[in-house]
Amino acid sequence: MQVNPDRLLNRISRMNAIGALPGGGVCRLSLTDEDKAARDLLAAWMREEGLEVKIDELGNMYGIRQGRSSLPAVAIGSHLDTVTTGGKYDGTYGVLAGLEVINVLNENKVQTDRPVALINFTNEEGARFAPDMMGSLVVSKPHLRDEIWEAKALDSGQATIRQELKRIGYLGEVACGSIPIDYYLELHIEQGPILEHERINIGCVEKVQGIYWTEYELHGRAAHAGTTPLAVRKDPGLLASSVNVFIRQLAEQVPGQLGTIGLMEFTPNVINVVPDRVRMITDLRNPDHDKLHQAQRQLDEFILVESEKSGIKVERTERVRLAPVDFSKEVVEVVATAGGQLKLSTRHMVSGAGHDAQMMAAVSKAAMIFVPSVGGISHNINEHTEPADLVNGANVLLQAALRLAGAV
Amino acid sequence: MQVNPDRLLNRISRMNAIGALPGGGVCRLSLTDEDKAARDLLAAWMREEGLEVKIDELGNMYGIRQGRSSLPAVAIGSHLDTVTTGGKYDGTYGVLAGLEVINVLNENKVQTDRPVALINFTNEEGARFAPDMMGSLVVSKPHLRDEIWEAKALDSGQATIRQELKRIGYLGEVACGSIPIDYYLELHIEQGPILEHERINIGCVEKVQGIYWTEYELHGRAAHAGTTPLAVRKDPGLLASSVNVFIRQLAEQVPGQLGTIGLMEFTPNVINVVPDRVRMITDLRNPDHDKLHQAQRQLDEFILVESEKSGIKVERTERVRLAPVDFSKEVVEVVATAGGQLKLSTRHMVSGAGHDAQMMAAVSKAAMIFVPSVGGISHNINEHTEPADLVNGANVLLQAALRLAGAV
Repeated sequence: MQVNPDRLLNRISRMNAIGALPGGGVCRLSLTDEDKAARDLLAAWMREEGLEVKIDELGNMYGIRQGRSSLPAVAIGSHLDTVTTGGKYDGTYGVLAGLEVINVLNENKVQTDRPVALINFTNEEGARFAPDMMGSLVVSKPHLRDEIWEAKALDSGQATIRQELKRIGYLGEVACGSIPIDYYLELHIEQGPILEHERINIGCVEKVQGIYWTEYELHGRAAHAGTTPLAVRKDPGLLASSVNVFIRQLAEQVPGQLGTIGLMEFTPNVINVVPDRVRMITDLRNPDHDKLHQAQRQLDEFILVESEKSGIKVERTERVRLAPVDFSKEVVEVVATAGGQLKLSTRHMVSGAGHDAQMMAAVSKAAMIFVPSVGGISHNINEHTEPADLVNGANVLLQAALRLAGAV
Repeated sequence: MQVNPDRLLNRISRMNAIGALPGGGVCRLSLTDEDKAARDLLAAWMREEGLEVKIDELGNMYGIRQGRSSLPAVAIGSHLDTVTTGGKYDGTYGVLAGLEVINVLNENKVQTDRPVALINFTNEEGARFAPDMMGSLVVSKPHLRDEIWEAKALDSGQATIRQELKRIGYLGEVACGSIPIDYYLELHIEQGPILEHERINIGCVEKVQGIYWTEYELHGRAAHAGTTPLAVRKDPGLLASSVNVFIRQLAEQVPGQLGTIGLMEFTPNVINVVPDRVRMITDLRNPDHDKLHQAQRQLDEFILVESEKSGIKVERTERVRLAPVDFSKEVVEVVATAGGQLKLSTRHMVSGAGHDAQMMAAVSKAAMIFVPSVGGISHNINEHTEPADLVNGANVLLQAALRLAGAV
């Protein structure tokens, strides 16, 4: 049994017509009209494959194919939402490869012991609402539902998650976490350069690195750029800039450490006015929790010392604190075995990005399958994975799902 | 003859009700509805004082009081527009002190040889349209009219100067530069800490430092913050941050040098995405043209070296290149003499900020009068000058104008 390459690639291409950007790439921010159109298309395809479609209170979509037994399901999931400059495969590939797996089961009339559930999670990217991995977060921690419902859009307006779910028709009634799942598989592009560099077909992801996001609002004093001597300035833009340079040095010194400032906003943002305040969010990651924690401590110490020197007031909010997550050894070995049987080269690896799988790891035995990303480029319209690699990954997903669902 | 303190302060306060910000300060961006309201109020006051009101093709407003002779006028000017977080005195004080001078001439039935012209220049601040000092620029260089008419708003929308002038009813028919002016006086708050620090009443401004604004658009590559190794990143946010830190070091090393980045914009400005591009505008100033030029050269060299190291493409646009301007020695001495006769302490000084006076210096004998700014704070809602200082400055303006217009 093998996936149908043309059907898989064709569905990916049809899905990516929704929110297509000039020059390639996709913008399908969570709970926008584009997201709704993508969801509607997926629901239609799920129904074509005879799946029972369920929507939960966070808008997560489930397409369920019954098994022989009433055991908890093997779930295959990812997400259809993207960042503003999103690529064609981040998330979308995992969902549509899962659909292809089910299509293959159907056309081969395979009966599995366990049900197989295809999931499209709400707002994995966090580009329009924080936090990211929102849908899977609430599946793993249903008590967060009410708080998450009130999360407000980061773009214009004050729309909440709940309002936007309702507006696009995806505020479902199924309680988050109420669908029984024993195993979770997620197929994804690597979004990094390792597999490509080492010429390996399949990554068996055994861990997700830890992620700390911290928001800093730096309050200085607006002042005339032409008349205010350096000595009396309180320039939060200069402090934010020093922090960006410091984070890079930190990342270069600490093993495994990454550090980024992707969001920085000057106010009033006028050429000849020393900024009054600057808002920025730091993104630190490390597979080793102690090292990550230590890097964050060094960052906060630097900001404390420098802000006191320059008379700048700092408001600090911990936006995300995700410890590194270990995946299920059992599932990782199922993936590695499937790769080996398909005569593909494999390696165990750590995921640099956060994924819904790390939330699902708290409530099921989970692991991920990675395929190479050309140039390691992602969150970028030039994100690309070769068709052969997309097909390889989907075949590994098929074999691993068959194994876990009890059909081989 | 003395100015009337209550009348002066009262007019300033009535003017600043237009565009008043919560917590004090004013936002009257050029050619907005607030600017229109301020202009209408000034025009009404000009007419109350019997002035002939003229509007030129750039919206500069003139209120002309005839003299005995047909000699070119003595002009007193400044501006009513502000930055987004503007104070109550920057510009407004100079215009309304000029109106007060004319009021005193009227109530004392003073006849001057030369006409006295009160001017409110369009868009001195440059906060909504670049370049700043726009109205006086075109008065001094009328051939720039057509080009400046097409300048587009920096805020939302694509409105041009000409469209906005028309919209608010201030696209006049008088040709820029056609009103004959021999002398130009501008009274202004210092916007810096020198007079306050030295406890001096009046600054006799003999020079304006040079100003270089340079826009840089840094093109990197959007990339996932969690998966992209440092070595392959092209992070324009990091480069922009290094530039900010470098400019501060430069300013600390070069005598008389100031350097600021007030405007910096990340795109797409998302937490977990290495920026694709960053736009920033650097503001370098120095009273010494050679040193200023040299500082700009060092800045460009730094950006060249660092951008090549990090694979970032730089687009560079020279937005403003203003050489230092020397004011008229004759007019500076008239100001110093007036201050001395009023028993006020005076000093000669350099202006850190750009002012309409520097444009007028190209077509007339010009100088400026400064009064102390509390804490040197400006372009800030907490900008403040003590009432006694405001009155002192207006009295110096009155005596200097009388001398230049030929009434004493």
